[in-house]
Amino acid sequence: MGGDDAPEAIVAGAVEAVRAGERVVLVGDRARLEPLLPRRGRPDVVHSPVAIAMDDGPVAVRRRENASVRVAMGLVKDGRACAAVSCGNTGATLVAAILDLGVADGVERPAIATVLPRADGGRLVLLDAGANVDCRPEQLASFALLGVAYAEALGMRNPRVGLLSNGEEDRKGNMQVRATLPLLRELPILVVGNVEPPAAMEGACDVLVCDGFVGNILLKAAEGAVTTVVGLLREEVRRSVPGMTGAFLLRGAIERFRDRVAWDAHGGALLLGTGGLVVVGHGRANPVAVHRAVELARRSSEQGLLDALSKRLGDRVSR
Amino acid sequence: MGGDDAPEAIVAGAVEAVRAGERVVLVGDRARLEPLLPRRGRPDVVHSPVAIAMDDGPVAVRRRENASVRVAMGLVKDGRACAAVSCGNTGATLVAAILDLGVADGVERPAIATVLPRADGGRLVLLDAGANVDCRPEQLASFALLGVAYAEALGMRNPRVGLLSNGEEDRKGNMQVRATLPLLRELPILVVGNVEPPAAMEGACDVLVCDGFVGNILLKAAEGAVTTVVGLLREEVRRSVPGMTGAFLLRGAIERFRDRVAWDAHGGALLLGTGGLVVVGHGRANPVAVHRAVELARRSSEQGLLDALSKRLGDRVSR
Repeated sequence: MGGDDAPEAIVAGAVEAVRAGERVVLVGDRARLEPLLPRRGRPDVVHSPVAIAMDDGPVAVRRRENASVRVAMGLVKDGRACAAVSCGNTGATLVAAILDLGVADGVERPAIATVLPRADGGRLVLLDAGANVDCRPEQLASFALLGVAYAEALGMRNPRVGLLSNGEEDRKGNMQVRATLPLLRELPILVVGNVEPPAAMEGACDVLVCDGFVGNILLKAAEGAVTTVVGLLREEVRRSVPGMTGAFLLRGAIERFRDRVAWDAHGGALLLGTGGLVVVGHGRANPVAVHRAVELARRSSEQGLLDALSKRLGDRVSR
Repeated sequence: MGGDDAPEAIVAGAVEAVRAGERVVLVGDRARLEPLLPRRGRPDVVHSPVAIAMDDGPVAVRRRENASVRVAMGLVKDGRACAAVSCGNTGATLVAAILDLGVADGVERPAIATVLPRADGGRLVLLDAGANVDCRPEQLASFALLGVAYAEALGMRNPRVGLLSNGEEDRKGNMQVRATLPLLRELPILVVGNVEPPAAMEGACDVLVCDGFVGNILLKAAEGAVTTVVGLLREEVRRSVPGMTGAFLLRGAIERFRDRVAWDAHGGALLLGTGGLVVVGHGRANPVAVHRAVELARRSSEQGLLDALSKRLGDRVSR
C-alpha cells in the first residue's frame, strides 16, 4: 500500500513479476487490490485493512500491528515468505523490520545498502542509503561491519572500507566523521580512511559508510546530476548534429548506457542487519522497479544471503 | 601557496589571467614564486614566508598572522586588492576571512555559495558548499538570508528557498533539518520547504540551504556522477557507432555540454558574509580554474556585490 503511485504501480509491478515466474503475495486492502488484478497470472493477496502513510511516524507503526508493512514482516518471520518488499515509508519499514524480525547479532541498527557501478568496472556498496537519518559513531562502525559482510557475500575479496567525507585527510569531516574514523580503525576490517564521492565512484573503496541522511542525499544528487546531464546532452546533439543522423546514432548508446548507470536499476536496496530479508523499494517506484525489487528479494533468498551475512558478521564480532 | 598543485598551477593560472587583462597579486614565498614567473606579463608578488598546510587547523591560522592567506585578506582589508582568491585549505580561508575581514551584520557565519545550472535553464544558489561542516539551525537560517541576498544580487526576483532534505514532507530530514525548517518559515523570505536534490536541480527552488558537509558531498557526488557518465558514454559511442563518425559527431556536443554543465566551471565560489570579497577555489585547481576564479572575483567587485549584499541583508535583518 506504500509508495507515491500505490497501490496501482505496486500491483502492476507484482503482476509483471508473476508473469515472469516470480511468486508474489500482495499485502494490503483486498477491496482496493482485487479490482486492479487480472483474471489470470495474479499474485496472492493477504488482507490487511490498515496502511502506514508516508508522513506517519514510528509510533503509528508500533501501535498498528495489523498495518500492511507489519503483516508482510510477519509472513517473513513465520516462514510463509522468503523476503518482504516495501516501497512505502522507509522509516516505517525499518521500524516494522526491527519490531517483527529483530536485529541481527552484533548489529547496532539495520541499514539500507545500495550497490553502485564504479567507473573502474567494480561495484560500490554504499550504506546507510536512507534508513537512519541521525547516527551515532558506533552505529556507523556497525554499518562498516555489515557492509563488509555484504560485499563478501557478493563475492568481493578483502573489501576496502571508506568513510564518506568532504576530504581525504584524517582531520577532515564533521564531528560525526571525525569520531567514527578511529572506531573503524579498531575493527577487524580493511579501512582506507576518509573518501570523497568522486574517489569512491572511481574505485578508492569497495564499501562506503555514511549516515542515512547524507547517503540518501549523495544517491539523489548523483541521480539528479545524471538525469540533467543526459537531458542536456540530448539537446546538444539535437542542435549540433545535422538532421536525424546524430539522434539516431546516439539513441542506442544513451539507452544502453542509462541501463548500465541507472542508479536505481535494482528497483530497490536491501535493508541489512535484521532477522529476515527486506527490500526497500524506491518511493517513486514504477512497475519495472517493483519487478526488479522482487527479483532482488528472490535472488538474495536463493543465494542464502541472510545466512552468509550472519556467519560473516558473527566471525568478525567474535574477534 | 594553497591547493594540490601549488604553487605551480596557481602561478600558471595567475599568469594566464594577467595575459587576459586581469590585475593579479600573488601572495607567497617569493623564492618559490619568482622562478615560475615569465619575464613579461607577470603578476605582482607580495612576499609571505609562511603557508597554511591542507591539514592545519584553525589555531595555526590564528597564530600565523604572516601566513599567505592572512596577508591576502589584509590586502583586501586595506583596499589594496578588491578581492582575495584562495585554492588552499577551505577552513583556513574561512578563519582568515573572519579574523581579518570580519563577519557582515546579521550574519551568523560566512558560507560558500555555488551557482549551479538547472535542468529548466535557471540557476541554483547552493550554500553552504563547504565552509562550515557542523552547523546549528540558526546558522542554516542565516545562510538562507545570505543566499536570498545573493540570488537577488544576481538578478533573480523573489528567490524561492528550499532546505536540502531526504524527502519533501515537513517531518523528513535529520534533527538538524527538522529544527531548521520552522526557523526559515519565520524569516521574511519565500520558503518552499524541504527539497530533494533532483527536484532542486529541476527548478523547485532558487536557493538551496544545507550545512557545509552535506553541501560539499552533494556537489562532489554530482561531479563524480557526471564524470562517470561522460566516461561511460564515450565508451558506448566508441563501441556502437561504426568507425570514427560517431566520435567525431559527438566530440563537439560533449565538449560544449561539459562546458555548460561543468559544476566547477567557475573555478571557484564566493565566500559570502564577510567584510570583503573572498573567492574559494577548487583544491584541485588547474590553471584554467584559477583564471576563472580570478574572473569571478573581479566581476563580483565590478558589480558592487559586497554593497548589494549588505544592503539587501540589512533590509531583511531590520525586519
